[in-house]
Amino acid sequence: MTQTSAPVSGDIRVAVSTVIFSLRHHPGQDRPTVVLPLVRRTRDPHEGAWALPGGWLGVDEGFETAASRTLAETTSLAPSYLEQLYAFGDVDRSPSRVVSIVYWALVREEEASTAHRDRVDDENVAWFDANDLPDLAFDHAHIIDYALWRLRNKVGYSRIAHGLLPDAFTLADLREVYEAILGRRLDPANFRRQVENSDTLLPTETFRTGSHRPARLYRYNQDVELAERGPLPAART
Amino acid sequence: MTQTSAPVSGDIRVAVSTVIFSLRHHPGQDRPTVVLPLVRRTRDPHEGAWALPGGWLGVDEGFETAASRTLAETTSLAPSYLEQLYAFGDVDRSPSRVVSIVYWALVREEEASTAHRDRVDDENVAWFDANDLPDLAFDHAHIIDYALWRLRNKVGYSRIAHGLLPDAFTLADLREVYEAILGRRLDPANFRRQVENSDTLLPTETFRTGSHRPARLYRYNQDVELAERGPLPAART
Repeated sequence: MTQTSAPVSGDIRVAVSTVIFSLRHHPGQDRPTVVLPLVRRTRDPHEGAWALPGGWLGVDEGFETAASRTLAETTSLAPSYLEQLYAFGDVDRSPSRVVSIVYWALVREEEASTAHRDRVDDENVAWFDANDLPDLAFDHAHIIDYALWRLRNKVGYSRIAHGLLPDAFTLADLREVYEAILGRRLDPANFRRQVENSDTLLPTETFRTGSHRPARLYRYNQDVELAERGPLPAART
Repeated sequence: MTQTSAPVSGDIRVAVSTVIFSLRHHPGQDRPTVVLPLVRRTRDPHEGAWALPGGWLGVDEGFETAASRTLAETTSLAPSYLEQLYAFGDVDRSPSRVVSIVYWALVREEEASTAHRDRVDDENVAWFDANDLPDLAFDHAHIIDYALWRLRNKVGYSRIAHGLLPDAFTLADLREVYEAILGRRLDPANFRRQVENSDTLLPTETFRTGSHRPARLYRYNQDVELAERGPLPAART
């Protein structure tokens, strides 16, 4: 009774793409912006347009393996953890029928800069401000919109801390990350209260000193982070 | 630079499956249980085992169209809204390479019973208690575990109200749904406080009367429901 009545899907190909978000501080601007790497297509369809890093799923390759491989080949990035964003399958999203399984990750600013230096001679890879994207191939503008929506709406304090900040950070560092993602200023006192009322951050006994008064460093709570990931990573092997 | 270096994926097939949750009241039990429909496989692989309703994605068919079509063909169910659950792609999940895009939905108890009556002569379709499943084909036990985890962890008040309850319901009706999904009793006073502090329900001016004292009927807040769905349904066309 199952799988008997539909046309066979032999003419559908499966690709894997990745949306990698990072932050970049710009000289003279008071908060960083959200950036992501894109790869310029060197063949049709959409030759010359920018696209998300990605490629075909190998027949012996799991989704995450393919996502990591194609991301490394194109951008030199190797995030420690990729999460499935969504599967995109509109019939008309490509001239031939292509289903794209999209993964996403956050990487720290240093990691993004290092990968960029490795590719500095490659004019077909570049980081773009999420608010100022070039012409994009296929439905990749739609995919990035969705990824940004997920970033703004669904990411918990701990995951942002994990993905975009060093291991220890001040509440001002964390607020700056939120301000970049949300695109607006947050009230420092309210922000501190919200964070302190959650169990996602743990205070350390270390303070950052400098031109301002000493600021306590925090680290994220690993227990919460692991719980948020859900049952899949363990079961996927 | 994109999509140049991987093995071509011509030997990968794409299937679509659905996990449909409903509630069933059992005589003599004080709370309903979560149930889902399964379809018995009549061919290899896994002939005779139970599986999620599903089938191959047609080359000219969007994911949701294929999910709705195969669900209707096997179970007569036609939920008003299907949400993408996850794409499953482990290399060894089937003897040949199959990527399954899984959708899920909640249907009301009456809808589940009606669909079941239409199929009462078909011994290869049945509803099972989520806590008492038969042997399942492929990785479908894993998929159902993940769907139950999502149901328990991520579903908001409004969506449960929408999917499993009639348009107007009492807080006791709603609490019963939560108790069934979570598998434990909830304190009525705490539950009422939580619901009243959210903006997902709107009180009506109608009361249900009967052997108990009159209970106010509520309906879900459409504005919240639409916001929760995110940007995808509109963009998917």
